[in-house]
Amino acid sequence: MGYTVGMRATARPSLGPADYPFSHPVRTRFAETDAMGIVHHSAYLPYLEEARVAYLRDLGRSYAALHESGTNLSVVEAWVGYRMPLRFDEVVDIGVVVAETARAWFQIAYLLTVDDAVRATAVTVHGAVGNDGRPQRLPDWLREPPWD
Amino acid sequence: MGYTVGMRATARPSLGPADYPFSHPVRTRFAETDAMGIVHHSAYLPYLEEARVAYLRDLGRSYAALHESGTNLSVVEAWVGYRMPLRFDEVVDIGVVVAETARAWFQIAYLLTVDDAVRATAVTVHGAVGNDGRPQRLPDWLREPPWD
Amino acid sequence: MGYTVGMRATARPSLGPADYPFSHPVRTRFAETDAMGIVHHSAYLPYLEEARVAYLRDLGRSYAALHESGTNLSVVEAWVGYRMPLRFDEVVDIGVVVAETARAWFQIAYLLTVDDAVRATAVTVHGAVGNDGRPQRLPDWLREPPWD
Amino acid sequence: MGYTVGMRATARPSLGPADYPFSHPVRTRFAETDAMGIVHHSAYLPYLEEARVAYLRDLGRSYAALHESGTNLSVVEAWVGYRMPLRFDEVVDIGVVVAETARAWFQIAYLLTVDDAVRATAVTVHGAVGNDGRPQRLPDWLREPPWD
Repeated sequence: MGYTVGMRATARPSLGPADYPFSHPVRTRFAETDAMGIVHHSAYLPYLEEARVAYLRDLGRSYAALHESGTNLSVVEAWVGYRMPLRFDEVVDIGVVVAETARAWFQIAYLLTVDDAVRATAVTVHGAVGNDGRPQRLPDWLREPPWD
Repeated sequence: MGYTVGMRATARPSLGPADYPFSHPVRTRFAETDAMGIVHHSAYLPYLEEARVAYLRDLGRSYAALHESGTNLSVVEAWVGYRMPLRFDEVVDIGVVVAETARAWFQIAYLLTVDDAVRATAVTVHGAVGNDGRPQRLPDWLREPPWD
Repeated sequence: MGYTVGMRATARPSLGPADYPFSHPVRTRFAETDAMGIVHHSAYLPYLEEARVAYLRDLGRSYAALHESGTNLSVVEAWVGYRMPLRFDEVVDIGVVVAETARAWFQIAYLLTVDDAVRATAVTVHGAVGNDGRPQRLPDWLREPPWD
Repeated sequence: MGYTVGMRATARPSLGPADYPFSHPVRTRFAETDAMGIVHHSAYLPYLEEARVAYLRDLGRSYAALHESGTNLSVVEAWVGYRMPLRFDEVVDIGVVVAETARAWFQIAYLLTVDDAVRATAVTVHGAVGNDGRPQRLPDWLREPPWD
C-alpha cells in the first residue's frame, strides 16, 4: 500500500457547553435539508465557518482585516461527528473554542446543541498563508488562546 | 472540562491511486468556488457522496434499492484533509475504497487527484439504520470488502 | 419551433423599501461567494426562502403547521434580477410582499438592500399541493393579502 | 408605490428538444435534494451554469480564456419555471440555446428533460463586464448566434 497520511485534527471536543467561550446561533434552512428529511451533512461546514467568523468579529478581528494585514486563514482539515440529526427550522447553538495551536496552524473545536441537547461535534484545522498563497507563521494573537 | 468524545475515523487514506479499486471523475463547478478563487472546502463532501453512490452503482447496488430493502446508510463522521486547492473546471478523480468495517458501521477512504497529483484525502464513517431510523446490523455484503 | 411556454411571474418588484410590509436580515456567508469575489447568483434563492419562512413565522404561520394541515407550498417559478453584487459578510435586508394571488397560486415579490442601496429584486410563484402532491385550492388566508 | 423595474428575460423557452443545438447531461446529487424528497429549486441554477460552461467548451471557448481576453460574463437575471420535480440520481438533459442578443447583454434559454419528459425551462440573461467590473460591449462572436 502507498504512503499513508496522518491527521492533525487531534482535538477532542468537549460535550459541555461551558467549555466553549463563545456561542453563535444558526437557524437551519429548508434548502439545507435532504430527502431523508434532515439537514444534509455537508451543510454543517458552512455553519462552522459562520460561527468562527462571528467569533473573530466578537473579538474585534475580521477576515477582511486579516487579509488586508497580509494574512489569510485556510482550512487544512475538517472533521465532523454527527450524533443526532438537525431538522428544518431548528436553532443550533454553535460553541467555539481554540483548541490547540502550533507555529503554522491551529485547531478549533465546536459543539452543536439545540436546547442543550448535543447534535454534533467538530474540529477544523487552519493554517496561515500570505496573499501569495505561501505558508506563514501565525500572528501572535492567534497563537495565544484565548484569542484577544 | 466536560466529557470528551473520540473519533471513529481511524482509517488513514493511502496516497497511492492503485490502492483504490474504484475511481469516479467529478468536474468542479463555478458555483463551488469561493472568493479565494478555489473550490470551497464544504463542496468536497458532495463530491465524496457522488463518488460512493457511483461506486455502489458500479457494484450493482443502489441507494434506492438499499432503502427498499429496509436499510439506509447514514453519515456518522466525515473527515477531509485538504492538501492542494481545487480550481474551477478541473476534473478530479476520486478513488474510493472500503477501509474498515464493524458490526454496525464501516469506513470509506478517498483519494482526490488531478492528473495524478494529490489534492485531498478523506474518510467517511457510515452506519446502517432502518426505515424507522434505528441502528441496524450491516447487510452481509457491506461487512465483507471488497464489496460485491 | 416547438410549443413555447409563458411566465406567470408578472409581478414587478418596487424599488421602495416602504412597499414591503416585512423585512428579514441575512448575513452573507463566505461559503456563498464565488471566484469573482461576490456572492454566487444561486445563493439568493435560499435567502428568499429564509425570508418568506420568517414572514410566515412572523404572521404566526409555519411551514410545519401548514404541512400538518395537509397543505404544502411548492415553488412553481423563481426570477431574480441582480443589480449590484453582494459581498462576503454584508447584511442584506430582504423586503417581502405578497404581490398577486389566484385560485391555485400566488406571487411574492422581494427587494434586497444593503444600507438602503438596492442590490437585487426577485419574484417567486408558489402553488399549493396536498400531501399526495396534487394541486390544491389555496387556503383562504393565503388568498387575501396582506396575509394574517 | 416606488419605482418598479422591468424584466429583460423576454425569451420563452421552447418545449421541443430539437430547438436546442447543444445538450448537456447532469446527474442529480443526494446533497441537492430537500425534505420534500425532490431536488431543491435552488440547485437548478448551478445545473444551468454547468450546461452553459459545457456549451462554451464545446464551441472551443472557455470561461478562463474569456477572462484572459479581458471579458467576464455576469448573470444579470435568472428565471426558472419548475414543471415536474427532479429526484435523486436522475440524469437530466439540459438543452441550451442562445435566445436573443443585444449590444451589452444576451439571453440563454434552457430545456430540462429526463427521458424526453419536460421537467423545467429556464432563461438567464448575461452581461459583459471588463476585469475592472465595468459594463462592456459584447465580443462579436457572442452577438451572432449560433455562437462559433
